[in-house]
Amino acid sequence: MCSLATSGFINFMKMAIEQAIIARSAGEIPVGAVLLDPAGKVLAKSGNRTRELKDPSAHAEVLVIREACQVLGNERLSGCDLYVTLEPCAMCASLISASRIRRLYYGASDKKSGGVEHGACIFSHSQTHHRPEIYSGICEEEVVELMTSFFGKLRL
Amino acid sequence: MCSLATSGFINFMKMAIEQAIIARSAGEIPVGAVLLDPAGKVLAKSGNRTRELKDPSAHAEVLVIREACQVLGNERLSGCDLYVTLEPCAMCASLISASRIRRLYYGASDKKSGGVEHGACIFSHSQTHHRPEIYSGICEEEVVELMTSFFGKLRL
Repeated sequence: MCSLATSGFINFMKMAIEQAIIARSAGEIPVGAVLLDPAGKVLAKSGNRTRELKDPSAHAEVLVIREACQVLGNERLSGCDLYVTLEPCAMCASLISASRIRRLYYGASDKKSGGVEHGACIFSHSQTHHRPEIYSGICEEEVVELMTSFFGKLRL
Repeated sequence: MCSLATSGFINFMKMAIEQAIIARSAGEIPVGAVLLDPAGKVLAKSGNRTRELKDPSAHAEVLVIREACQVLGNERLSGCDLYVTLEPCAMCASLISASRIRRLYYGASDKKSGGVEHGACIFSHSQTHHRPEIYSGICEEEVVELMTSFFGKLRL
C-alpha cells in the first residue's frame, strides 16, 4: 500500500490503478493511465483496451493521449502530465515524446516490455525529440501485486 | 523512378506513395502505407493524418494497422505484409512488432526519426517479441524526392 495517500501525485496514481483494475475485470492486461492538463485537471483516463477494441495500439497511454488531444483540439500536449501504472512500452514512450508530455509518472518497472529504462530506452538516445521529466516507483507495490496476480507469476 | 514497375512489391509501394502524395496535399508529412492480408489483398491504405485528426499517433502505419485489425476482427495481423514509404519510427515499429506483421517493406531510411535501422532500433534488441522480415530501398529515389521537396531540404 502507498504510505503517502494524501499527496496529489499519489492520488492520481491511485486513479490510474483504478483504471487498471477496471481493465483487469474486462480481461485486459491491468494497466491504467490518467492524463492531466497543465493546471492538474483530468483530461482523460483509461485502462488497456486492446482486446475489447481489437486494436493492438489501444494501450492505456495511447488512449488517454488520443482523447486528451481531442479535448484540447491539439496534437501536442505541452505542459500535460501522464500517470501510468506500468513503465510504458516503446510504442507508448515514443508517443509520449511525440505528444510533448511534460512529466511522466509510473508505478512499476517492466523488464519484459518497458521501453523507458529497458529495451529500446526511448528517451535515452540522441534521436529523441522530447524527453519528459520522469518519476517512477509510485505505488510500486500495489502495481506489482496487480500485475503478478494477473499473470499468476512474477514477471516484473 | 523505379525500374521494376511490373513487380508486385513495386506496385504496392507505388500505392503507398500515392497515399503519401494525398497526405502531402492535405499538409501532412508525406508518408503513406498499405497493408495486405496473407493472400496479397489490400486490407487498408492511408497516409499520415496527424494534423487532420489532431492525433499524434495517426501515422500512416498506425492507421492501416488499426483499420486492418477491424477488417479482420483480430488484434494480430499474422501473415500480413506492410508497405510504407519511409522507415517507421519507434512507435510504429513497436506496433508492427506487437501486431505480428509478417513482412515490412519500406522505401527510404529516415536518419532523423526512423526506429528500425536508427535510434531505438526496435527490432534489434532482446526484448523484441516479434521481428518481421524487412526489405528496404524500394522506390527509394521517389520517396527521398517526396520528402526532400516537402521539407525543402535534404533531411534523409
